[in-house]
Amino acid sequence: MSFLVFEGLDGSGKSSLMAALERELQARGISVKRTREPGGTPLGDEIRNMILRTEGPSPLARAELLLYEASRAQHVEQVIRPTLASGVWVLCDRFAASSVAFQSGGREISENDVVMLNEFATGGLKADLTILLDLSVEESRKRRQGRGAASGESEDRIESEADSFHEKVRQSFLKQAREDAGAWLVLNAQETPEVLFQQLLKALTEKNILK
Amino acid sequence: MSFLVFEGLDGSGKSSLMAALERELQARGISVKRTREPGGTPLGDEIRNMILRTEGPSPLARAELLLYEASRAQHVEQVIRPTLASGVWVLCDRFAASSVAFQSGGREISENDVVMLNEFATGGLKADLTILLDLSVEESRKRRQGRGAASGESEDRIESEADSFHEKVRQSFLKQAREDAGAWLVLNAQETPEVLFQQLLKALTEKNILK
Repeated sequence: MSFLVFEGLDGSGKSSLMAALERELQARGISVKRTREPGGTPLGDEIRNMILRTEGPSPLARAELLLYEASRAQHVEQVIRPTLASGVWVLCDRFAASSVAFQSGGREISENDVVMLNEFATGGLKADLTILLDLSVEESRKRRQGRGAASGESEDRIESEADSFHEKVRQSFLKQAREDAGAWLVLNAQETPEVLFQQLLKALTEKNILK
Repeated sequence: MSFLVFEGLDGSGKSSLMAALERELQARGISVKRTREPGGTPLGDEIRNMILRTEGPSPLARAELLLYEASRAQHVEQVIRPTLASGVWVLCDRFAASSVAFQSGGREISENDVVMLNEFATGGLKADLTILLDLSVEESRKRRQGRGAASGESEDRIESEADSFHEKVRQSFLKQAREDAGAWLVLNAQETPEVLFQQLLKALTEKNILK
């Protein structure tokens, strides 16, 4: 079983690609668990709300990072590790790389501190592959606004950060992918869902993650 | 202005001693803010509830530590540092030493990890003096039970840990005080409130914290 993580700006198409891969794996007889961060556990969902809500007290930068890491620690120990141990694949919407991108790239907390906190929260668990759906900030904003108009939901506290924040997040994702190229797959999120899915399948096969 | 932290097992008399010191400082014309961890901010009080409640999802060991640290980071940045900067003394019920005692001593998370997380959450802020009210586990349990019977409140999730857990917490406090003796004052919590208060005043004067 494998642990695959999907990263990218909001609106980059992570959910659609995860859903397509889940269907493909199930068709091949592989059991799959889809999950997300922050969240993925009952406690994590409460923490998610504390982080993302736009009303009520908001965490400052360090507290925000520590809340993400608390959600992650609970998720790894209560869900991800036991699921993998039972032979089920885990597809996760955001993981440790998001903390580097948002809290170090975006909030400018030292990258060493974020990496150290990721290491503590995950107990060293790493994704077998991290798939980055790379998208421009402008296109991400358009897609989020379109989604908001369709669903009637307003932006959460992180989504509503300035474009300059999201640009730093995007650049951090790209930098992480360059610096650890073997563990990342960078896809152009402007491609059609079908092309993205075929590119993902090809990479999983080439990397022997999918036989 | 000074930052004084009060540590010890539940029932050790931290609140009474803090109240006595607050009255003394106010009588001398010194402005004082009393606060506590986990908590001390609106967000921190929400986190406190997640940690201490006995119903609803509970954090596992690593997530628990990260939640304490999130509460601490918010508290330091939003309350403790601004209060000290405005010339007001801060008396705090529990701080970084409690995470070492409960999460490393009690839960057996590596002490290095706890110290590193304390450093990140506090941004390096240290108490001018940490006052340990040392009490046996047996006496702490008796006092907690007496308090519970009087108030009708039941024990929180940490209080309801086994005696062996609280013994490890006590020993960790004593070890921290031995290893950094100049920054700690160890008092025997079995003394009367008046004796404890006089011993505290004497120590604060000798250490030139109080003129």
